[in-house]
Amino acid sequence: MSSVREVKVATEVPGPLSKAEAEKLGSFFDNRAFYFVADYDKSSGNYIVDVDGNQYLDVYSQIASIPVGYNNPTLTKAAQSREMISALVNRPALGNFPSSHWHDSLKNGLLKVAPDGCDKIFTAQSGSEANELAFKAAFMLYRRKQRGEGVEWSDNEISSCLNNAKPGSPELAILSFANSFHGRGFGSLSATRSKAVHKLDIPSFNWPQAPFPALKYPLDKFAAENAAEEKRCLDKVEELITTWQFPVAGLIVEPIQSEGGDNHASPAFFQGLRDITQKHNVTMIVDEVQTGFGATGKFWGHQHWNLTSPPDIVTFSKKAQTAGYYFGNPRLVPDKAYRQFNTWIGDPARVLMSKAVVEEILARDLVSQTARVGVALYSELERLATKYPQLVRNLRGKGQGTYIAFDTTDPASLVKKMKSLGVNIGTCGTQTVRLRPMLIFEEAHIPFLISALDKALGPA
Amino acid sequence: MSSVREVKVATEVPGPLSKAEAEKLGSFFDNRAFYFVADYDKSSGNYIVDVDGNQYLDVYSQIASIPVGYNNPTLTKAAQSREMISALVNRPALGNFPSSHWHDSLKNGLLKVAPDGCDKIFTAQSGSEANELAFKAAFMLYRRKQRGEGVEWSDNEISSCLNNAKPGSPELAILSFANSFHGRGFGSLSATRSKAVHKLDIPSFNWPQAPFPALKYPLDKFAAENAAEEKRCLDKVEELITTWQFPVAGLIVEPIQSEGGDNHASPAFFQGLRDITQKHNVTMIVDEVQTGFGATGKFWGHQHWNLTSPPDIVTFSKKAQTAGYYFGNPRLVPDKAYRQFNTWIGDPARVLMSKAVVEEILARDLVSQTARVGVALYSELERLATKYPQLVRNLRGKGQGTYIAFDTTDPASLVKKMKSLGVNIGTCGTQTVRLRPMLIFEEAHIPFLISALDKALGPA
Repeated sequence: MSSVREVKVATEVPGPLSKAEAEKLGSFFDNRAFYFVADYDKSSGNYIVDVDGNQYLDVYSQIASIPVGYNNPTLTKAAQSREMISALVNRPALGNFPSSHWHDSLKNGLLKVAPDGCDKIFTAQSGSEANELAFKAAFMLYRRKQRGEGVEWSDNEISSCLNNAKPGSPELAILSFANSFHGRGFGSLSATRSKAVHKLDIPSFNWPQAPFPALKYPLDKFAAENAAEEKRCLDKVEELITTWQFPVAGLIVEPIQSEGGDNHASPAFFQGLRDITQKHNVTMIVDEVQTGFGATGKFWGHQHWNLTSPPDIVTFSKKAQTAGYYFGNPRLVPDKAYRQFNTWIGDPARVLMSKAVVEEILARDLVSQTARVGVALYSELERLATKYPQLVRNLRGKGQGTYIAFDTTDPASLVKKMKSLGVNIGTCGTQTVRLRPMLIFEEAHIPFLISALDKALGPA
Repeated sequence: MSSVREVKVATEVPGPLSKAEAEKLGSFFDNRAFYFVADYDKSSGNYIVDVDGNQYLDVYSQIASIPVGYNNPTLTKAAQSREMISALVNRPALGNFPSSHWHDSLKNGLLKVAPDGCDKIFTAQSGSEANELAFKAAFMLYRRKQRGEGVEWSDNEISSCLNNAKPGSPELAILSFANSFHGRGFGSLSATRSKAVHKLDIPSFNWPQAPFPALKYPLDKFAAENAAEEKRCLDKVEELITTWQFPVAGLIVEPIQSEGGDNHASPAFFQGLRDITQKHNVTMIVDEVQTGFGATGKFWGHQHWNLTSPPDIVTFSKKAQTAGYYFGNPRLVPDKAYRQFNTWIGDPARVLMSKAVVEEILARDLVSQTARVGVALYSELERLATKYPQLVRNLRGKGQGTYIAFDTTDPASLVKKMKSLGVNIGTCGTQTVRLRPMLIFEEAHIPFLISALDKALGPA
């Protein structure tokens, strides 16, 4: 059976039924960010259907988080399993009373795709939480090294931390990059530097921000300039680590800055970060919340770098359908129980879904497919970039699967127009349209997407 | 059919199979806080079964989070519903593309039990997240009032917030109480003051901490002293709000300090907090993560206070099986979309479970039952307190449903002994045993619990 479905948009978007439903919802739930109200029962594969009956090819995928298609049969089977019903009904405090199924859920799911060098896991419920747990692990490791292995906490540390005072609550920093997005909690938001709408009015920690390379496209034309730009940023990273008012315990970086505008850097840049973090004993956290789980044509975005040694921590969420972090160093497990702990420690129901996602990705070899389809998609977009040089600029993501983006003059209008043409697509940064198809996006879906883009970009 | 099941413990706790399973798990998951590995398929109602076949009466309930019993049929039905399968398989970005079921899930679930004066909701995934979202709402409201209604953000605010600097990232505080627990994120942990193991080595905000009343028991004997103690704490709250180095935008308080040792205060104390917060324009956040959903014999713990005006924000999690916060003031909705936002905004699968929990609680009138059973349970514990005056001290929670606790000399040994006698029970604070039965705990379960306590407290 073909995976290509009919696309039709018979109303304005959002349509009258979407609007009516959103208005009802608005009486008790903030509805101002809604695009349309979806009918997930009628959605399938790469296609999302709204309550007005409009059908769209979806290359936004719930902000890059649907991995293997709406109503995927493998996921549906997992959702109906006996283990799932128990995980939903008997939600455990996983640290105290794990289920007899918990070992298998992880071992044959998330652990199967653990990045090289990261053979341990801590489960969580969102990318924000995963990053904050990673920060906490980095801070505890830093102080453990400082305190000395096996040295007991002092009375002064114990009492001062309850007052949010030094030395128990130390001044320690996480370094992040300009335009990064790492989440919305008070720690993860302190590392986020993307948009004022995320940060304004919220108190934050005094943590350093390094510039992220601003590469020029096409890359081959600007090779020397881009290398110099990356060196400038690496130098600044090292300078910040060595001169900040207080110690930098961790560094967090996205393989591709996603919310911040799909900004890329070279493997050499990331190797540079690995070298600097190792030199200065800084925990290197790779935030794969958006890049993880195959969209770049490798399972993990950082696998494109061939680092000389693996990152210390890799965080995940979105397409994983749950969240958490991987790590390798056993000293990232705190010196005592209950330090890295909470009531639920993730959600076993969502971890079962992630197991089904992993099964589906591996069984259908969807990462290879995404790499292959990405090549074809990129080349079609290159054609459009040539045809509309003012409207499709800085095309990027070559060799990065379907993780492709370009700059344009009015991204909001373009994606609005695309919806009316039957394509659900998203923006990022201030001038960028990003493609985030699912891993089941095929060559067969390219012509419709490209033809819609061609129409939307062409003269009105 | 009787809800009383046989209790049997045939091995040491944890038993050999639990230990073997936990050891396997330990190769990739921190297992140091585990008590035993549970067989949830064999657990039911108030009884939890472990992989060694031991069966316990469970009055700890997954750290106070199982609401209506293991394998509850109403919840099982919800877990098997078509809406649930869709919510699991097609996880939406609820702010952008809510499902056509989303309105009903909330309206006929969590909204049905919304506290008076709190008719709006923001959904989340954990108590920590719920509290941090509440803090953000308080901060945004504070700055909105300061900026003036309708006044646009300045360029300086917009650029400074991206640098984590004033005025965009303002210095604003949340006041909390000594011994409080509000979560593990960097914001919620800054408000948490319970134990060093939660806080040590983690950077925190410079936020004020007020004393929480240390009441003496029995309450009637120390009425005057306790009233003076509450006044002392209220005075200190007002002093901190008016003299802190920077503005206090919000105050967060638990109706009963739970992790911190089951510390109670009188309705007059909480009315005092409401008066002070209103006088000084401080958002009053009531953290009902542990007290909410019926365990105190009212649906919400703060309903015991009969406040002259409702709290500004009420947070929930645990027994709700999902998380989030309620609020009434529409100005707690930020001035622009996407300020209070994240990819998932909670989990519709867990919100469907909460709907089933609400149905079950209301249909079986379980809050009234808990109030009634609590009276009987308290009076049995009074008997034990008389019998063992050194080992059962400061019995508290009278008139608070089954939310009952007492101090003892060695709580860790007592709960260990109780496990060997077939009762799963927990501690809190440094010297306290807390009861956290489910809402389906009945008079019929009291004799076994009391008899086990009697044995555990009695001479070896």
